[in-house]
This record gives sequence, C-alpha cells and structure tokens, in this order.
Amino acid sequence: MTTTSSKASILKSRVDVTPQLVDVAMGRAKADLVIRNGRWVNVHSGEIIPGTDLAIVAGRFAYCGPDASHAIGPETTVVDAAGRYLVPGLCDAHMHVESGMVTVTEFCRAVIPHGTTSMFIDPHEIANVLGMEGVRLMHDEAVGQPINVYVQMPSCVPSAPGLENAGASIGAEEVAEAMNWPNIIGLGEVMNFPGVANNDPIMKGVVAASMRAGKTVGGHYASPDLGLPFHGYVAGGPEDDHEGTRAEDAIARVRQGMRAMLRLGSAWYDVATQIKAVTEQGLDPRNFVLCTDDSHSGTLVHDGHMDRVVRHAIEQGLKPVTAIQMATINTAEHFGLARELGSITPGRRADVLIVSDLASLAIDEVYARGVLLAKAGKLVADIPAWNYPATAKNTVKLGKTLEAGDFDIAAPSGAEAVKARVINIIENQAPTRASVAELPVENGLVGMSRANDICQIALVERHRGTGTVVNAFVSGFGYGKDCALASTVAHDSHHIIVVGTNKEDMALACNRLGEVGGGVVMVSGGKELALVELPIAGLMSDERAEIVADKAARLTEAMREMGCTLNNAYMQHSLLALVVIPELRISDIGLIDVTKFEKVDLFV
Amino acid sequence: MTTTSSKASILKSRVDVTPQLVDVAMGRAKADLVIRNGRWVNVHSGEIIPGTDLAIVAGRFAYCGPDASHAIGPETTVVDAAGRYLVPGLCDAHMHVESGMVTVTEFCRAVIPHGTTSMFIDPHEIANVLGMEGVRLMHDEAVGQPINVYVQMPSCVPSAPGLENAGASIGAEEVAEAMNWPNIIGLGEVMNFPGVANNDPIMKGVVAASMRAGKTVGGHYASPDLGLPFHGYVAGGPEDDHEGTRAEDAIARVRQGMRAMLRLGSAWYDVATQIKAVTEQGLDPRNFVLCTDDSHSGTLVHDGHMDRVVRHAIEQGLKPVTAIQMATINTAEHFGLARELGSITPGRRADVLIVSDLASLAIDEVYARGVLLAKAGKLVADIPAWNYPATAKNTVKLGKTLEAGDFDIAAPSGAEAVKARVINIIENQAPTRASVAELPVENGLVGMSRANDICQIALVERHRGTGTVVNAFVSGFGYGKDCALASTVAHDSHHIIVVGTNKEDMALACNRLGEVGGGVVMVSGGKELALVELPIAGLMSDERAEIVADKAARLTEAMREMGCTLNNAYMQHSLLALVVIPELRISDIGLIDVTKFEKVDLFV
Repeated sequence: MTTTSSKASILKSRVDVTPQLVDVAMGRAKADLVIRNGRWVNVHSGEIIPGTDLAIVAGRFAYCGPDASHAIGPETTVVDAAGRYLVPGLCDAHMHVESGMVTVTEFCRAVIPHGTTSMFIDPHEIANVLGMEGVRLMHDEAVGQPINVYVQMPSCVPSAPGLENAGASIGAEEVAEAMNWPNIIGLGEVMNFPGVANNDPIMKGVVAASMRAGKTVGGHYASPDLGLPFHGYVAGGPEDDHEGTRAEDAIARVRQGMRAMLRLGSAWYDVATQIKAVTEQGLDPRNFVLCTDDSHSGTLVHDGHMDRVVRHAIEQGLKPVTAIQMATINTAEHFGLARELGSITPGRRADVLIVSDLASLAIDEVYARGVLLAKAGKLVADIPAWNYPATAKNTVKLGKTLEAGDFDIAAPSGAEAVKARVINIIENQAPTRASVAELPVENGLVGMSRANDICQIALVERHRGTGTVVNAFVSGFGYGKDCALASTVAHDSHHIIVVGTNKEDMALACNRLGEVGGGVVMVSGGKELALVELPIAGLMSDERAEIVADKAARLTEAMREMGCTLNNAYMQHSLLALVVIPELRISDIGLIDVTKFEKVDLFV
Repeated sequence: MTTTSSKASILKSRVDVTPQLVDVAMGRAKADLVIRNGRWVNVHSGEIIPGTDLAIVAGRFAYCGPDASHAIGPETTVVDAAGRYLVPGLCDAHMHVESGMVTVTEFCRAVIPHGTTSMFIDPHEIANVLGMEGVRLMHDEAVGQPINVYVQMPSCVPSAPGLENAGASIGAEEVAEAMNWPNIIGLGEVMNFPGVANNDPIMKGVVAASMRAGKTVGGHYASPDLGLPFHGYVAGGPEDDHEGTRAEDAIARVRQGMRAMLRLGSAWYDVATQIKAVTEQGLDPRNFVLCTDDSHSGTLVHDGHMDRVVRHAIEQGLKPVTAIQMATINTAEHFGLARELGSITPGRRADVLIVSDLASLAIDEVYARGVLLAKAGKLVADIPAWNYPATAKNTVKLGKTLEAGDFDIAAPSGAEAVKARVINIIENQAPTRASVAELPVENGLVGMSRANDICQIALVERHRGTGTVVNAFVSGFGYGKDCALASTVAHDSHHIIVVGTNKEDMALACNRLGEVGGGVVMVSGGKELALVELPIAGLMSDERAEIVADKAARLTEAMREMGCTLNNAYMQHSLLALVVIPELRISDIGLIDVTKFEKVDLFV
C-alpha cells in the first residue's frame, strides 16, 4: 500500500469523524484499511482475543470484532494478520528528544520501526538555550509528525535559579501561555523538589498554571528520602515520578496516588528493581508506566526504544499484556488521553503493531493513524525533514576567540602550591564527589596533575557572549594524553563544558564549537579527533540518527584513545554543570557546592 | 466535634489550597483533622496498609502516611481509628434521584450514613417534565450538598420523539449550554441506541456536544444483540453501559473500551452475573464500576445504598479492595475526577469512611471533605432542606376535572363484541407482551373483564392541560375489586398513568393528583387508600426519605389489598408508558407497538 505522511497529518478530531466511524462499523460506509484475523491484545480487559478484525477509517478504529467483512469495499486495503498479535502502538511516557541529539522528526524516524507511536517529550534542554521560542519550535515540529508527539512544558528553567544563568528562564506566565498550545499535555518534570516542598514561589506558580489548565503535572523526586520532604512534594501536585530506583520508591509513589514511571534509558536501569513491586509484592499494575527518559542515538539505532523497554519488563516476569498495558493504556490514562490513544478500540487513533511473537515483541508492521509507517524494522513512510530557523542555529555566542590564557588559573599571590577543590567523577553514578588536592604552582599559575588524573574543567558562557570562563579541576576521566573535550550539551544551562589536559586544546575545542554552531568535539595536540555537530541550539543535529550515532561512537572511541575508561564517559562530562545533583559542580557563576546550594571558592 | 454544612460548601479548588496542603504535609501548618492509626485501603496500589495517619486541611488530604504527629496543633481534631479501616467514600456512578421520590438533599441525607460521598445523577425524569429548568434546579441543589453530587445532562428527552410528547425536549443546543454548568460531568445515558447506530441527527448532536466539552458520554445499550448494532453504538461514542445483564455483556463492553457499570438497584440485580467476568474469567477489574441506577426510598431507608452494592460484590467473590476500587477510584477515573476524589491520597477531597469490618463493610463514621457527616448509621450533620420554586410544584395541568366518561371506550358502531389489543405485564421484567382479547360491548361502550384480569389503562396528558385521555386495556395486575391507581410518575414523559377496574375511581384518582400537584394514589370505591404526594414536578416529595418510604409501603399494601400480587407492582405500573421497551405501551398519542415503533389501533 502507498503511505504518505500528509494523509496522517490531517487527522481530524474524534468528534468530527464519529458519524463516519458509525457508518463504517455498521457497514454503511467502507473502511480505508481492514486488518483481518489477528490476536487482539486487549489492554482494557487484559485478554488476548484470537480471530479479531479491525476496520479503520479516517485514521481511527471504527470496528474491532470478529468479522469486519461488511466494512470492506473496493477501495479498502486489506491486510492479513494471519493470527499474529495486534498490539496498541507503544507510548514513551517521559523522554527528552535532545538526548538523542536529533530533531523530533529524526527521533520519530528512528523509533517508529521499534513500535513507538506516542511520545511525551519534555524539551527541557532547548528551553534552557532558547526559552519559549525553543519549546515552541519543538512543539510545532511535534504537531507535524505522523505519530503522536505530545509536549510537556519545561518547569525548571533554569534548574537552579541563583546558582546559574541559563539562556532563558521560564515562570508561571510562560507555562500558562504554553498550556494553550495544541500539543502541550502537561508540565514537564518538576525537578526542584525542595522548592515544591518549601512552597517556592516559582514552583508554586508553574505547578498552579498547569493545574488550572487541567493538565498532568510531571514529577521528578530525585532523593531516596521517603519522609516529610517526599510527602511535601506529593502534596504540591506532581502526579508521576521517574526518579525512583528501588521497589520501595515505586510503592511509595503509587500509594500516594502518583504513577510510578519506570525508566529504561540508555544509561538508566530502573525497571528491574522497581517492577518487583508488582511481580513480587503484588501491587495493582495500573499505576505503573514505562518510559525511557534519555535515549542516545546509538541506543535507538542499535537496541531499540519502547520495544526494548517492554521486552525488558516482560523478562522481569511481567505478563506480556501487563507490560504492554504499562506502555499503552496506563500512559494514555495518565495524560487524560485514553479516549484518543493507548488501545485498539473504536474511536481511538489507529496506532497498531502487528507482532509475530509477544514475549520477544517481534514487530512486523507499524501503523499509526491507520497508515503503514514501518515494516520488518524499516521505515517505509516518507517523513520529510524539519527545518529549524536560523535563530535556532546560531546559539553559540562566545563573544571572543578563546586562547589558552583564558584557562589560566592564577594562584594566590606568592603561593608555591595550592589546595584546590576537585570535582570527582563516580563511575556509573550521576552524583560527583568533592575532594581537595594539592596542586603545583608555576609562574603564578596552578598546574594540573596528570599523574593523579587531575585535569582542568571550564565552563564557558555561550548564551550572551559575555566571554565568561570559569575554571576548575576535575578528576576521573583518566585522560593520559594532551587533549580536550568540549560540549555545548552541558546540563542544564548548556553553556560549554570543556575538560582538558592542555589549555591550547581546550581553547581550540571551544572555538571549533563556536564555528560549527555547537556540538561535541575532541581535540588532541591541535588535531580534531571527533566531532558531533549539533547546530540546533547546540543540542541537536539536523542529520539522521544513524549518522549521529556513528559520530557519537567515534567520539567515544576518541575518549578511549585519550585514556578514558568510564562507561558513559560523555554523559558524565555533560552532567558536570548540573548544579542540582550533589556534591560539586561548575556553573557560569563559579564552583557550586550542591550539598549546600552555594558557591564556593576554588581554593581551600 | 461540631460539624456544619456551610464549612463543606465552601470547598476551595485544589489548586488554590495546594500551598496549604504542602505546609501541613511538612508540619509548617497544622491540620483541621487528623485520623490516626487506621488501615489504609489504598485503591491505587491495591494494598491495605496498617498504621496509617491522615492529615486533613481545607477539606482535603494533605498527608497520608505512617505518622502525622507533626500536623497536629492545638486546634486540630484528632480521631483515633484504632486499627479500623480507612476506606474512600463510595461513589454511585449512575443513578436517578427521582427514583427515590425525594429531593437531592433528602437523597443525600438518606445515603450518607451508608457511606456514599459521591453521586453521579441523571435528572432525566425532571427533564421530561420541566426541561432545562428542571435540570438546572436539581443541578443547583446538587452543587449545594456537603457530598459530591455531579450531574449527567439528560440526553434523550423525550425518549421516543414522534411517539410521545413530553413536558419538554432537549437537543444539542441545550446539552452544549449545560456543559458549562459547574457540576455537569457528562452526558446522561444515551438510551436511543438505535438512533446512535443510525446516526440520528439529534443523537449525533447531543453526543457531539458532550464530546466537544471533553465530558464523559454515558451509555445505555438495552439489547442482548452484541452484533453490528452494538458495534455501531460503541463507535458512536458512549463510554459506559449499565444495561448489561450477562457476563458476556460486561466482557463485550470492556473489550470495546467502555466501562461496564454493574447495577444493583431496588429492582436491578445485574452484579452477580456480570462480575463473573472478573471472578471467573479473570478480566482486568479496572474497567468495572458499580452503580445503583434506581433506588426506591424503602431500599435507602431499610437496605442501604452503595454499601449494599459493595457488600454484594464482595459476596460474589471479589476481594474487598477490588470491590471498593469499583466504587471509588474506577468511578473517579471514568469521569476524569481521579485528581479530585475516589482515593485517600494527598490533594483529594477528604471523603473517608472508618470501617470496622471490611468484608461486611460495617461503616462506623462517614467524613466528607473532612467533616464528620454520619456516625453509627445516623446522620450527625445538619443538612438544610432545599426549597423548590412554585414553578416546579405546579406541574399537573389536567385542563379540566376528569369524569368517568373520559374513560369511556366507544366500540365500533354496531359491534356486540370487539377484539382489542391488551398490554400484558410480565412478572419481574420490564418488557410487556402484546395480546388480543375479545371484550364485551354494552351500550356502545367496550367493557372490561375482571374475570380475565383485563382492566382499563389511560394516559392522561398533564403537561399542557390539553385534556387528552388515551384509553386502552391492560392485564396482569390482578385487581379483583373496584379501584384505580394513578401516578404522575409515568416514564419517561411523566403524564398520568391510571389503571382501574372502575371509571369513577379512575377519574377520582386523577383529580386527586391534580389537587396535590402530583404523586401516586390508590382509590377504591371513592375512598382514598394510599397517597404519596410528589409535589416537585409530580416526581419528588419534599419530605424525608423515611416518610416517603412509609407512604410508598402503604401504597404497596393497598395494591395487594386490591388483589395485586406482582413484585414491584408500582414500578410495573409506572413503566407502562415507556415507549422504548417492547412490546406494547401507551402514550399521549395512542397505543404504541414498540416492536415496530409505530402507533397501532386499539381494535384489531
């Protein structure tokens, strides 16, 4: 059959096509598409019903039952499911497109063959660079997709007011405005959890704006403390949380009326432990929802997306239909969309997967809104690229050409050695450790210590061209050669983080990012080893996920060549300015002690 | 503790009190009420959690957890649950207040001690008498209650356009208007199921108006046919159905994405058969919801309300927590109210029952919005009576004083006997049977046949004072004496139905209803045996449920004294004008064959 994205993009509202659905259900009009003889994975009843036909018209299911012959006319495309499973299209309940370093369109192209037909994206990263304009750009791109891409309005921009200056800030007024945009489905993860529990005015305001609009307030309670701070956060309104890591976290959230979002991302492995709340402790599974949060391009290209998560959940002992519920109807209900998607039932968008094996979730065909989009793991629909305007592409404003001298760290006058604070990477964890190291002074400048794996880190302001460079020390990357890695992905305010053993390379790396409009670059001895160009807001490529994945793989390789043996080494790099996670971080205002939420001196 | 309804009626919106909830959860402010040491029946997780404290402020839960000491201040009322169960207040998902023959207020007074704290009422009966004014009156009364009374906008008024003239009619415009009223929660049962499947313009219009408002469309598919007409109906938008009677009915509805509403009313017993879909066939229980539909005053006073339904569901083999979910969170989710009610979790209205035994649902105390309303089966709150305006009380317009001659049935000229159609009551069923009987003619008038239990029935127009009297014959009541029973409750158009063995008594009974503004009266040989005055729209009393129940019991007694041995004899009487249920009915336009939906002659 021929498929076009234009067909899909003109999906009419359910109410407008209801009479047409009735006519097709009754056989008075004929379906666009009939899928025959499938095993209906019914997420409402929890059953699998063999011998099911589906009749689809206007992008929606009109009839789901034992025999749709009456809905077949001369123009109807008929597909024989031949006893295979009919599974609702999968939903990713919370995720950041920017983590894939591609546009929404390219993300869709990458995940559709994996059965994802609905995504709830939080364009938090672009919001930190471009503010409302960035959110609107991704929102408008989302609206144009042939699958369902809903947008959660970023809630915490900047993530740590007072401790950093992002490219923009968002408050209650902006949230209230965005709530009127067509695909805004709720508020993105409210990460400032102490702010909620303390009735911080900005947090109160953004949550209230979302509640007044009747939308879903996304949560993010990144603490193991299930005492009062947790209860205060819950009372403040967040309705889900994907930051739990232990079974007791999931249980606590569900008991409080939140939905536990269990996350399997490229670097998050939070399903296996938490799903025990269902498989071992017998909790009602209805309030459990699956998501990815962050998927790198490589994961999308090589491992999958929501199919990977559902498969993994089944491997943990869930019944397949229960796991599928957690990626379909549970998600739809959470966002108030159960009339629209998340199940194969009349009126809903005809998002359906033909699956040959349920436990392994082997997806043969992917339909969204009744249009075949992927077959045998390959996209078969034409999804045109989305062009971002120039304003979104010139976001790296250094204000000057950086030189090695910008990374000089002057010692206190007359000192021969200094005791300096050092940010220490902890393998496989987001928190850092703060330590103090004695470092040599030469010609009044503090030196690094390659022997002790202490090199320099700098935060280079890039939103306003102020020329600000904040210098400090970091340990844990293991770089044993002259090199520097610079990135405009630098959570959450997304300035430039550059880490290097060599100041010339640090300057070169930053300047190179200025030239290409952002991205990630590794240089060594004046030579470029790897580059991932991310011209859109310095966060996203305009190339295909496969190409980005290749370039990112080359970057990882280059990091290894320079001596780095960390897992997820680049991710560790890009989180070093995340001034909401303990213990020590860097921001454009200085070195930040995130145990006390205050700026500290480099020297002790 | 002192309780007042005024306290409850000023419940603020959740968003407005969220900062206050946070302060109480954190202990920075103190709760109005703390309930300590209960077993938390958690309808989200499906668990029962001992040792739980609840802190309540501004009518909402602020904290639900192991220790609320920090929320107790000098002004806080502290209640010791002493290990008893904390159950969310019960919800009746679909019901008609008018069936209890009392006002919304009196209905609430009657059901609160039974643990009902939320009702979804469809004021369909008053709509047939007073149209939008009637709906608005009951809506406004609903808004003023200390429990949650949401209103479903009646969808089918009249129930059978063309076959009857009701007191008013409702179309898409009226529905669209009502959708803006604060407590309108959706569209009431769409009973014209053939109309939906046939894309009848009025049905399309009212459903679309509700869908556009984002509200829940109530269903009513009263047919055992699960083939195309059912599928056509589902495609048309209804989202629930309480007309199923068999397990396969419930299963079919849930599979299609509807919620199966299982009904236990005064005369409906549809839970036991349908719940087997869960207890025996293992369907996911989340889409099953309990309701009463119609409860007579006697049932409310003597047997209970939603407590009776939940208890019954548990007796059928459901786990108590599952049965409770079906009367709490499942209902709240169905109506998009899960943020507001249906569970004991922060932010929700503090509607909670203290229950000493879960399986028998022994309710010790009933709190709604944090206010103690009932204790040990007795109402302890002051709920002031609601006064209906005069326009709602003068609805019986006969246009004349009726005389025996109004009930004369003239035989065809010169006939000595006639073959007449007779409406036959079927014991314990709503459908009637059509038969033909030979009846004597005397002085040109057709006579009754007491020996064959054939007496007269008349439909007396009462909305516009046209003086119309439609005469016909009915069999099955067994009246062996001179008598007549007249009622202004005459579904659905609510004219007067009078059944009698004696025309003088028929006239007297009708005139008596004219005098008292409506109700039900039994007269015999010119003497009044029983009277239930229903001055509000001819449907509802302004007295207490206990008094109405006593009067209704006296009426039943009088019917038995006259020879009637039917179960639910009065209900059978009041349904004889329901021109949507086969086979033969009476309306103000004549005798209606409800197998063909057309008017037929009295004589064959």
